[in-house]
Amino acid sequence: MSAFIFEGFLSTPEVLEVFSEAAVVQAMMDFEAALAQAQADEGLMPAGCAQAIAGVCKADLYDVPALIAESGRAGSLAIPLVKKLTDTVALFDKPAAGYVHWGSTSQDVIDTAMVLVTRRALQLIDRDLTRLNADLLRLARAHAHSPVLARTLMQPAQVVTLGYKLVGWVAPLLRRQARLREAAPRALRLQLGGAVGTLSAMGPKGPAVARRMAEALQLPWSPLAWHTQRDEWVALGSEVGVLCGSLGKMARDLSLMAQGEIAELAEPAGGGRGGSSAMPHKRNPVSSMVALAAATRAPQRVAALLASMPQEHERGLGNWQAELAEWAGLFISAHGAVKALADAAQGLGVDEARMRTNIEALQGLVSAEAVSMLLASTMGKAAAHALMESLTRQALASGRHLRDVTLDAITRDAALAGLHDRLAPLFDIDRAAEPAARIALDQLETLDAEARRLQASPLPS
Amino acid sequence: MSAFIFEGFLSTPEVLEVFSEAAVVQAMMDFEAALAQAQADEGLMPAGCAQAIAGVCKADLYDVPALIAESGRAGSLAIPLVKKLTDTVALFDKPAAGYVHWGSTSQDVIDTAMVLVTRRALQLIDRDLTRLNADLLRLARAHAHSPVLARTLMQPAQVVTLGYKLVGWVAPLLRRQARLREAAPRALRLQLGGAVGTLSAMGPKGPAVARRMAEALQLPWSPLAWHTQRDEWVALGSEVGVLCGSLGKMARDLSLMAQGEIAELAEPAGGGRGGSSAMPHKRNPVSSMVALAAATRAPQRVAALLASMPQEHERGLGNWQAELAEWAGLFISAHGAVKALADAAQGLGVDEARMRTNIEALQGLVSAEAVSMLLASTMGKAAAHALMESLTRQALASGRHLRDVTLDAITRDAALAGLHDRLAPLFDIDRAAEPAARIALDQLETLDAEARRLQASPLPS
Amino acid sequence: MSAFIFEGFLSTPEVLEVFSEAAVVQAMMDFEAALAQAQADEGLMPAGCAQAIAGVCKADLYDVPALIAESGRAGSLAIPLVKKLTDTVALFDKPAAGYVHWGSTSQDVIDTAMVLVTRRALQLIDRDLTRLNADLLRLARAHAHSPVLARTLMQPAQVVTLGYKLVGWVAPLLRRQARLREAAPRALRLQLGGAVGTLSAMGPKGPAVARRMAEALQLPWSPLAWHTQRDEWVALGSEVGVLCGSLGKMARDLSLMAQGEIAELAEPAGGGRGGSSAMPHKRNPVSSMVALAAATRAPQRVAALLASMPQEHERGLGNWQAELAEWAGLFISAHGAVKALADAAQGLGVDEARMRTNIEALQGLVSAEAVSMLLASTMGKAAAHALMESLTRQALASGRHLRDVTLDAITRDAALAGLHDRLAPLFDIDRAAEPAARIALDQLETLDAEARRLQASPLPS
Amino acid sequence: MSAFIFEGFLSTPEVLEVFSEAAVVQAMMDFEAALAQAQADEGLMPAGCAQAIAGVCKADLYDVPALIAESGRAGSLAIPLVKKLTDTVALFDKPAAGYVHWGSTSQDVIDTAMVLVTRRALQLIDRDLTRLNADLLRLARAHAHSPVLARTLMQPAQVVTLGYKLVGWVAPLLRRQARLREAAPRALRLQLGGAVGTLSAMGPKGPAVARRMAEALQLPWSPLAWHTQRDEWVALGSEVGVLCGSLGKMARDLSLMAQGEIAELAEPAGGGRGGSSAMPHKRNPVSSMVALAAATRAPQRVAALLASMPQEHERGLGNWQAELAEWAGLFISAHGAVKALADAAQGLGVDEARMRTNIEALQGLVSAEAVSMLLASTMGKAAAHALMESLTRQALASGRHLRDVTLDAITRDAALAGLHDRLAPLFDIDRAAEPAARIALDQLETLDAEARRLQASPLPS
Repeated sequence: MSAFIFEGFLSTPEVLEVFSEAAVVQAMMDFEAALAQAQADEGLMPAGCAQAIAGVCKADLYDVPALIAESGRAGSLAIPLVKKLTDTVALFDKPAAGYVHWGSTSQDVIDTAMVLVTRRALQLIDRDLTRLNADLLRLARAHAHSPVLARTLMQPAQVVTLGYKLVGWVAPLLRRQARLREAAPRALRLQLGGAVGTLSAMGPKGPAVARRMAEALQLPWSPLAWHTQRDEWVALGSEVGVLCGSLGKMARDLSLMAQGEIAELAEPAGGGRGGSSAMPHKRNPVSSMVALAAATRAPQRVAALLASMPQEHERGLGNWQAELAEWAGLFISAHGAVKALADAAQGLGVDEARMRTNIEALQGLVSAEAVSMLLASTMGKAAAHALMESLTRQALASGRHLRDVTLDAITRDAALAGLHDRLAPLFDIDRAAEPAARIALDQLETLDAEARRLQASPLPS
Repeated sequence: MSAFIFEGFLSTPEVLEVFSEAAVVQAMMDFEAALAQAQADEGLMPAGCAQAIAGVCKADLYDVPALIAESGRAGSLAIPLVKKLTDTVALFDKPAAGYVHWGSTSQDVIDTAMVLVTRRALQLIDRDLTRLNADLLRLARAHAHSPVLARTLMQPAQVVTLGYKLVGWVAPLLRRQARLREAAPRALRLQLGGAVGTLSAMGPKGPAVARRMAEALQLPWSPLAWHTQRDEWVALGSEVGVLCGSLGKMARDLSLMAQGEIAELAEPAGGGRGGSSAMPHKRNPVSSMVALAAATRAPQRVAALLASMPQEHERGLGNWQAELAEWAGLFISAHGAVKALADAAQGLGVDEARMRTNIEALQGLVSAEAVSMLLASTMGKAAAHALMESLTRQALASGRHLRDVTLDAITRDAALAGLHDRLAPLFDIDRAAEPAARIALDQLETLDAEARRLQASPLPS
Repeated sequence: MSAFIFEGFLSTPEVLEVFSEAAVVQAMMDFEAALAQAQADEGLMPAGCAQAIAGVCKADLYDVPALIAESGRAGSLAIPLVKKLTDTVALFDKPAAGYVHWGSTSQDVIDTAMVLVTRRALQLIDRDLTRLNADLLRLARAHAHSPVLARTLMQPAQVVTLGYKLVGWVAPLLRRQARLREAAPRALRLQLGGAVGTLSAMGPKGPAVARRMAEALQLPWSPLAWHTQRDEWVALGSEVGVLCGSLGKMARDLSLMAQGEIAELAEPAGGGRGGSSAMPHKRNPVSSMVALAAATRAPQRVAALLASMPQEHERGLGNWQAELAEWAGLFISAHGAVKALADAAQGLGVDEARMRTNIEALQGLVSAEAVSMLLASTMGKAAAHALMESLTRQALASGRHLRDVTLDAITRDAALAGLHDRLAPLFDIDRAAEPAARIALDQLETLDAEARRLQASPLPS
Repeated sequence: MSAFIFEGFLSTPEVLEVFSEAAVVQAMMDFEAALAQAQADEGLMPAGCAQAIAGVCKADLYDVPALIAESGRAGSLAIPLVKKLTDTVALFDKPAAGYVHWGSTSQDVIDTAMVLVTRRALQLIDRDLTRLNADLLRLARAHAHSPVLARTLMQPAQVVTLGYKLVGWVAPLLRRQARLREAAPRALRLQLGGAVGTLSAMGPKGPAVARRMAEALQLPWSPLAWHTQRDEWVALGSEVGVLCGSLGKMARDLSLMAQGEIAELAEPAGGGRGGSSAMPHKRNPVSSMVALAAATRAPQRVAALLASMPQEHERGLGNWQAELAEWAGLFISAHGAVKALADAAQGLGVDEARMRTNIEALQGLVSAEAVSMLLASTMGKAAAHALMESLTRQALASGRHLRDVTLDAITRDAALAGLHDRLAPLFDIDRAAEPAARIALDQLETLDAEARRLQASPLPS
C-alpha cells in the first residue's frame, strides 16, 4: 500500500493497488519497453536490443524504495529509474543499454505511466458506478410511490416520494458517468515529446515511433506534447471532483435520513460494519462517512490541479511535480466513495412506515401550501397566506391536525364553506405524493435507458 | 458596478455590468414576467393579469439596494423582490397581484436569473477567446520558423520556434472554447420546480407552463429540477476554471519572456497601459498580471463550487447560498483574463533578434543533447554523456563556444575525428529549430480549421 | 454597496460599508494626506503644500467609478487616483501638486488603505463575537443541567447536557477572539517603502517620515517593507478562516438540532426572518445558513491568500493583485456569520422537554455503554459486550425499554442478579447527564473569566 | 514509506518515517499503554494488567497492513487495532484483556497518536528552519553591500543589495518559526474524553487518569475534549501553510534569479543533484522546485482542514476523517520544502559580477526615478516625468546610457545645466545600493538576535 495510513478506510484496496509504488514503476517500465520496441520496429535500434530492454522492464526486479529515495536528490523519479534500468540492461546486453530511454524525457515516461494507472482507476470507478446506479434505479422503481418528506433548508417542506428522491440521486450519477467517459479519452494520451516536445532526438522517425507506441499501449497520441498544456488532464480530474460532489450530495441526504430521530433509511449493518468501540448499540453510517470525506477533500484536490496549470515554458518547476503528487489522492478517494455508496445502496434499509409516521407527526403542515392555494382561489393570495399563518399557529399551539383546524375555520366562514369537500383530499398523503411519483416514473424510463446504454459499452479493462 | 473595488482592474466593465445588481434583478424580473405569461397562455390566469405583471417587471422601477438590504433578514433575495413586485402589481391591478410568482419558489427565480446572466458572460468570454485565438494563430504562422529557446524547469534547454510555442498556447485555448460550448447548454437550463421540485402547485399544467417559459427564455427545461443537483452547473464553473489555468499558462510564459533580461516578447504599451507611479521607464506586463491573478483565484472559486455540492434534501442550507455568492467572481475574472490576453496578443511585441541573441549567449550548450547523441553512436551513450559533461564544463569555464571546444576534442581523438563534418550542423540554430517549425506548421492546419469552425457558429447573443 | 448582489444576505450592511468603494478610496486619501503631513513635518515640503494636499484628500470630491474604470488600463487603482489627486491639488496650489505621493509607491497606498479598512472590519467582528460569546455563556449556565443527546457520527450516542454542548461552542470562539487580537497588530502595519522598499527617494528623512505617518495613522511601522512578504497579513486572514470554521461548527449543530424531527433548538422567528415564499408554515434557520455559507467559502478564500504568497521579487505580478481582490470577501462573510449567530443566540429557542423526549425515544439505548461496563465488572468485557448487543437487539425488536429487557435478563441469571440495584440508576437520564454538567460548570468559571478579560479591553475603534 | 510514490522527491525520508504506518500504529500503542498505566496508578485496574497491556503495545507485533485493511469495514483504524490488541493481551493475561482501551474512544487514541507524530514532524521542520535561517543570515551579511537589481512586476526596477533581498527572505522565516512554536503547544494536546467527551466511563477518576497520561506523554490536557472543536489543531496546520507560502516566496525569487539568462544565483550542484535525463548540461533548481511544489499544494491542504471544521455534534461524519487523511501531506511537504531550501542555502552560488552586469545592461534606466526627482526639484514633477520618459526612449532607441543622454539634454538647457554635478552620482551603482545596504545591516542586528533566541531553546525532541 502506498498511501498515508488514514487513506486506508476512505479508499479501497483495489484502487490503492492501482496507484501503488510497484504499479507505477511497472507502468514506467511498460513505457520503456514499448518505446524500445517501437524504435526497433522503426529501425532505430536492433530488434535484439529492444528485446533485451523489454526483458528487464519488470518492476519486481528493482528495489523500488531505493529508487524513490534516489528520486529526492535527482528531483525526478525517472532519472534513477532510467539509470537503474540502463545498468540492468547492461548486465545482459551492453550495446542495448545505450538505447534505453532513447530520445525520450523524464516527463514522457512519468506522464504516460500516470495515464496507464489512471485508466485502471477509472475502470474501477466506472464499474462501481454502474453497480451503484443499477441499485438506485431498482430502489427508485420499488419506492416510486412511497411518500416521504421533502425538506428544504433542513426543515420539513412537503410530501414527495422516495422514488423521486432516488431519481434525484441517480440522474446526476448517470450524467457524471457519461461525462467521465467523454473526458477519459481526451486526457488519457501517450506523452512522448522528448526534451522539449519535438521528438528531435529521434530525427524524422519520431512520429512513427510515437504512433507505434500509441498502438501498443492503446493510447491516442498527438504531435503536440502536453508536457505543460495540462488542460485535458486537469479537466478529467475536475470531472472526478464533480462526481465526488454528486456522491457527497447523496451521502448527505442518506446520513440525514439515517439519523436516529428520523430513521427513514439505514445503511446495511453486519460483519463489523460501522460498529463503535465504546457503544455496542451504535450502527454508524460508514458509507456516507466515506463519501462525505471524499466530497470534503475532492474540491481541494481539484483546486491543486488547477493551481498547477500555469507551468513554465516546456517543463514546469514545482507545479508539474505538485500535480503529480496530488493526482492519485483524488482518484483513490473517489473510488472509495463510489464503492462505499454502491455497498450501501445494495443493502439499503428503507422504513416506509417511519417515512409516513414522520409526515404525520407534522400535523398536516406539509399541506399548508396546497391549502393556501385553494383558499386563495376564493379570498385572494394575501388573505389566504395570512389565514394559513394563523391556522398553522393554532395547530402547533393546540397539537391538533391542520386539517381539523382548517375545517373548523371554514365551517365558521360562509364564504369558504363551499371548499369543504375539496379540502380533505389536500391532506391525503398519498395524493400529495402523486406529482413526485409521476416525475419519478417518467424519469425512470429515460434513466433506465441511459443506464443500459452505459452498461452496454463498459470502459475497456 | 457591483463588485469589490479591487476587482475593477482584474475584470472588465462589460462583464461587471452583466453581473451588476440591476442586471441580476432584471433577470429575476424577466423570469417572473415569463412565468406569468406562460401561465396565462396555459389558462392558469387571465391574460390581463400576466400583462399587468409583465408591465412592472422592470428593474429600474425598484429600489434595488433596499431589496438587497431586505434580503438579509429574509435569507433570500427572492422574498423581498416577490413581495415588492406583488405590491407594485397591486397598485395597478389588484387581482393580478395574486398571481405573482404563482407556484414557483425562490430558488426557481434566482437560479434562472443566474443562468440568464451567465449566458451573457459566456458570450463575452467566447467572443474574446475567438479574438485571442485568431491573433495567436496569426502570430504563430508569422513566427513559425523563428528560433527561440525552449526552457525546462526554468533553465534553457534546446531550440524551438516561437510559432511552436504559440501553437502550444492556442491549442488548449481552442479546446477550452469548444468545451465551454459543450458545457454551456448542459448547464444553462430553466429552473422551475416549485417548492420541492414537483411543480405540484400548478397542478397538471406545470410541465406545459415550464415548456412555454423555456421557449420564451430560450433555455432548455427538464422535468427534474436541479435545485440540489448542481453537477452540470458546477461542471460549467470547472470548465471556466480550466480555461483560467490555460490562460495562466500563456501569461506565465509571456511574463517570463518579457522580463527585462530576456526581452523576447513585450506587451503592447501606450495610453497609460502598465505605467509605474514611481518609475517612468517601467512598462509593466499588465495583461499577464490580470491573467495570472485569474489563474491564482479560479482554482479556489472552483473548489468553493465543488464544496457547495452536497446540498441537503430539496434545498441546501448555506451551500446553495455559498455557491450563488461565489459564482460571479469566477466569470468576471475569467473574462478579465481573456480580454487582457486578447489585447496583449493583438499588439504583442516580438523581438526575433533578441530571441536569437539569447540562444547564442548560451555558447552552444543547447545543442549538447544532439551532440551527445552523435557521439554516442560511436562511443556509446554513457561515455558520450560523460564526455559532454566535461566539454560543457570547459565551455562554461573558458567562455568559448561548445562547438569549438567539441571540435578541438574530436580533432584530438582519432576515433571521433570522422564526426567532424556532422558536428557543425548540430550547432546551426535554424536547423535546430526545424523540428519545432514542422510541428507548428502541421498543427496550424488543424488549429486554423478548428478556429474557423468555432467562428462559424458563435454563441448566440 | 460594493459587492456582488448575493453577498448581500450573507453579510452585513456595516461591513459592506467598511469595504465599500468610497471607504477604500477614502482610506487611500487618508494615506496621501498623512504622507504629505509627515513630509512637511520633516521639512521635505512646505507646510502649506501638505495642507493643500490634505484639503482635497476627500473621497467624495472624486468620481470613484471613473477611477476604477481607469484602473483597468493602468493595472492599478493607485495610478489614476494619484493622477486625479495631483490634478485636483494643482487646481488650488500648483507647487503642492508636485509633492503628491512623493517617494511612495502604488502598493504603499493600497496596502495601507486595506490595513485601515481591515482594522474597522475586525472591530465589527470582535464586537459581535463579544455579544455572541456573552449570550452563549448565559445560555450554557441556564442549561448546564438540562439533559440532551450527544450524537456521534450522526447517530444518538449518550446523554450530556445542553450547557456542555454550549460550552463546547463558546470555548473555541473565545480562543479565536483572543487569537485575532494577537494576529491583528502583527498584520495591521503601515506599508511605506517606496518603489523597492528602501524609501530611497526621500533620502535620509525616509524613516522619520514613516514613523510620523505611523503615529498619525496609529499603525506600527517596520523599516522592512512587507510588499512581497505577506506572511503576517495572510496569517491574519487564516485566523479569520479558522474563526469561520468554529462558527460553522456551531451552525452545523444548531441546524441539526433545529430540524423539524428533532426540534430541540430553534432560531428566533418574527419580523420576516426566515420565512418561505412558497410555504407559510416554514421557519428557516437563516442564521445557521449564513454561518454555514461562510464556513463553506472561507477555506477557499484562505487558500487564495496562501496561494498568492510566492510573490516575485519586490512586487508580485498577479498574485498581489489576486490577494487584494480576495481579501474583503473573507471579512465580509466572517462578519455576516458572527452577526447572524449572535442574533440567533440572543433569541435562541430551547425546548428542554423535547430534548428529554428525544432521549426517551431511544428506549434506554444511550445507557448501553454504562450497563456494559457494569456487566463487565462481573462477566468480563467481551461477554458483557456480546450480551449488550443481544439485549439491544431485543429492545429494538420488541419496542421495550432496554432497562426492562436488561432487568429481565439479570433476573434470569444468578451470577448477575446482584447487579439489580445498581442497574436502574444507569438508566436515570439526569444522573447520566451529571458528568457533562460538571464539566460545563467547571469550564464556565474559566470561560467567564476569559470573556471578562476580552470585554475589558475591546479592540479600539 | 507510507505515501504516494510521487511524494518521495518532494519530501524527506525522515518525515515520511514520522508519518509511516508503523510509526502511527506505534503512537496509538503508546496511547493505549499510557492509558492502562494511568488507570492502574489510579486504581482502576491491577498494576499487573497494565503491565500486561503495555508489554504488547509494540507495533512490530502486529500485521499493520491487515489492520488497515480491516479499518475499511469498521470505518476506523482504532476498532481493529483495539480488537487485535485485546486478543493479544488475552493470550498472555486473560483478565487484563478486559481493561484494554477502557473508557476511551476511537478518536481519543487516533487524535493523540496524530499529536505524537506531529510533534516529531514539527521538530524536524524547526530543526531545518534553524539551519536555513542561519545560512540566510550568514549570506545576508556577506552580501549586504552587493548591488543587485530589484524587480517589480517582473521588470527591472532599481538597485538594492543581495543582503537586502536575503533579509527579506529570512525575516518572515524567523517569524514563522516563532509562530509555529506558539501554535504547537496550543494544538498538541492529549485527546482523552471517552465516547462523548465526558470521561463518564471512568467515573470520578477520569480527570486524574487524564492528568497522569498527560504527564507520561508530555502533553497538556484540558477537561474539554477537542473531538469536534478542531480550531487550535487546524490553526497549527494553517501556520504550516503560511510557512510554505514564505518558503515559496524565497523559492520563487531564487528560481527567477537562477534562470540561465539572469544567473545571479545558483543552487548547489553535484552528486546527481538536479541533473537532466536528456540534457547533460542542465543544472535544475530542484530545491526551488520542491519548495514551489509545497507552496502550490499547501493552500489546498489548509483549505481541506478548514473545510473539515464544521463537525457534527460530538463526533463528525466524514469531516474528521477527511482532516485525518489530509493532515500528514501538509507536514511532509513542508519539511520537504524546508530541508530543500536549507540545502540550497548552504551551498548557494552567488555571482556578484553577473549581478552588476545585469544592472549595467539596463543602460542606467534603474536610476530614472532618482534623476526624475532631481529634475523635478528644478522644473516640477510633471515636466520632469515627461522629460524622463523622452530621455528613456532616446536611451533605448540609441543603445546609449541614460546618463549620457541626460547629460547631453542638461547641457543643452541653461535652466538645468546647474544639475550637472549632482547628476553623475545618481548613476553610481554602489551609491544607489546604499539605502538597501543600510536597511539590511540594521535588520541583521534584530534578526540575528531573534535567531539566537530561537536557537537557544529548540523544540524538545
